[in-house]
Amino acid sequence: MSEAEKINFDRGVPDPDTLPIDKVAESCSNILEKDGRNILQYASSKGYAPLRKVLAERVGNGASKENILIGNGSLQLLNILAAVFLDEGDTVLVESPTYDRAITAFSRLGVTVEGVPLQKDGINIATFQELVEKKQPELFYIIPDFQNPTGITTSLKKRRKIVEIAEENGVTIIENTLYRSLRYSGENKPPLWELNKELVLHISSFSKKLSPGLRVGWLAASDNVMDEIAKHAEDTYITPNLLSQGIIYQLIEEGWIESNIEHLKKLYKARLDTAIESLQQYLPNVKWFKPQGGFFLGLWFPEGTDLDKLYEKSKEKKVMLSKGGGFFPDKQSHNFLRIPFCAVNQEEIEEGIKIISTIYESLRNE
Amino acid sequence: MSEAEKINFDRGVPDPDTLPIDKVAESCSNILEKDGRNILQYASSKGYAPLRKVLAERVGNGASKENILIGNGSLQLLNILAAVFLDEGDTVLVESPTYDRAITAFSRLGVTVEGVPLQKDGINIATFQELVEKKQPELFYIIPDFQNPTGITTSLKKRRKIVEIAEENGVTIIENTLYRSLRYSGENKPPLWELNKELVLHISSFSKKLSPGLRVGWLAASDNVMDEIAKHAEDTYITPNLLSQGIIYQLIEEGWIESNIEHLKKLYKARLDTAIESLQQYLPNVKWFKPQGGFFLGLWFPEGTDLDKLYEKSKEKKVMLSKGGGFFPDKQSHNFLRIPFCAVNQEEIEEGIKIISTIYESLRNE
Repeated sequence: MSEAEKINFDRGVPDPDTLPIDKVAESCSNILEKDGRNILQYASSKGYAPLRKVLAERVGNGASKENILIGNGSLQLLNILAAVFLDEGDTVLVESPTYDRAITAFSRLGVTVEGVPLQKDGINIATFQELVEKKQPELFYIIPDFQNPTGITTSLKKRRKIVEIAEENGVTIIENTLYRSLRYSGENKPPLWELNKELVLHISSFSKKLSPGLRVGWLAASDNVMDEIAKHAEDTYITPNLLSQGIIYQLIEEGWIESNIEHLKKLYKARLDTAIESLQQYLPNVKWFKPQGGFFLGLWFPEGTDLDKLYEKSKEKKVMLSKGGGFFPDKQSHNFLRIPFCAVNQEEIEEGIKIISTIYESLRNE
Repeated sequence: MSEAEKINFDRGVPDPDTLPIDKVAESCSNILEKDGRNILQYASSKGYAPLRKVLAERVGNGASKENILIGNGSLQLLNILAAVFLDEGDTVLVESPTYDRAITAFSRLGVTVEGVPLQKDGINIATFQELVEKKQPELFYIIPDFQNPTGITTSLKKRRKIVEIAEENGVTIIENTLYRSLRYSGENKPPLWELNKELVLHISSFSKKLSPGLRVGWLAASDNVMDEIAKHAEDTYITPNLLSQGIIYQLIEEGWIESNIEHLKKLYKARLDTAIESLQQYLPNVKWFKPQGGFFLGLWFPEGTDLDKLYEKSKEKKVMLSKGGGFFPDKQSHNFLRIPFCAVNQEEIEEGIKIISTIYESLRNE
């Protein structure tokens, strides 16, 4: 079966047609001409200084370039933060469900990962409070905007409440804002970094708004903790990839990234609209919350649905799905299915959801 | 004091004048035109497949591209291997002295790092055998060619003996062959990978023969262990930087890397010759072994030399040195000083060694 024939609902990747090949080549030449001697040599583990300066201005709340560390993708940075902040036996709270690779990053350190159930406007605050008091976690990991894998956005009220509870209990927050710039409707809410920058480690990346292969993620952290983070990064890889960082700096300076984001928002919004229409038409029994941006829709099937069979039969029909259990700390299915809608065109989305619906109906009648 | 006025004997970096700025820009355009859709997207954690194929052919001994994993610099790969092979409380043997960042990579995992003293032709084999039997180490880390920080090359006889002892005692060997292609005199000796590829993990990099800022290192490992290594890399950063890997693939295909290595060898050999002449002339009481390649000369000062004072006074004279103790697992000075001779020109080398000599003489007469 060729890749082209499949409908890939199994990975949160950008549409390959949006990858700006010529633009990256042009920027690469430009930045090497301007600053090649620095870019091809070793440098600070914090990354390319001109880009750090720009990102500090963007993240705001008093950040300077010394509060910014750029690395080889946001997962690498999460692993560095995990190593710096956690010891074996510690507890981390995450949204449930959450990004599967974040669960792995924490649990491979011998840390206990506990989930706080998501509601349509963010985590259940009462459960969060209870778990914070009972488990005394070191960290809480949150994706506040258009969460992976559910598409849910945390309300402003809940953002404030989360920061308040974390402050009272000395819990450090890691917020992953990977999808934040891809908002298709509604109003921006402040990142948690804006509510308390001493407590919050803010992660972002260019993988979703430009290119994953360039591997550029970044984080903002307060003066208190940045030295230790930068030292750990240096001991891990000396210097992150500077060429990619130079290319991105160049694209930002030209204003190109902003226009690309506008282009992506238009393209992906249409796909989200199609996905929603298809769900309404073909899967009326399935629960989901309308995302205001990002890459994902989360589907909750009725209790008792045999999702393993659904994955298997979908695969036979060339619709590729990832198992929902991976997104939960307890690895149970929770009748959950993630639909990434950005790397598939509108026809494929409708066709894919239609196929899932047919299989679902056949399973119900078995 | 401006950077240009200093004589930098403190870091093992390439000469910035050798960084091929135009060539990298050109290769970037070429490879993006050929394969941009793959290079700007997520891919296997093993890295860019065409480059893996070329590297497998080069490392030989039956390796296929499935035995090659390319990552963001060799230190990152060493950290991945350390995480895969070691548990807290394990023991690792290293050459003494050795690469300071390797000691950190191991010891930050809560591992005991023991040094095996170096002789002019490699480690003391009797001590190695004794430590292997007594400490039952998991790993032995070795830089067999033009070692960092001493410039020493392990003889073929000792290579065979090391592999034999490791085989008998189930010790995994990590060999770092970073400097191997920069040989200025003498005959190539087989990498340990050629002696036993089941036991040996072979690391190399393009930092010293092309550019550090591109951050491309690679490793070869047997089928038995590669899956676990690739899984750990995936959990760490999903995909390594593909653009740099594509650029290097392009430069290899054009035959450019080989001609650059010839250029570097000529340039750096002249610097080594100057360093040796200067040592003979100005520091006759200091012990060193003539390197046949690489970046470093290791100096052993006579017992009782106050090296801390030497560093301090050299700095006042704008000669920058790194403290020798960092290269030893026991962090003691051992009267040792590393001289990296590649990023300084012949005039600076002579001038720097002359200044060190004057300070050394003044300390002797204090």
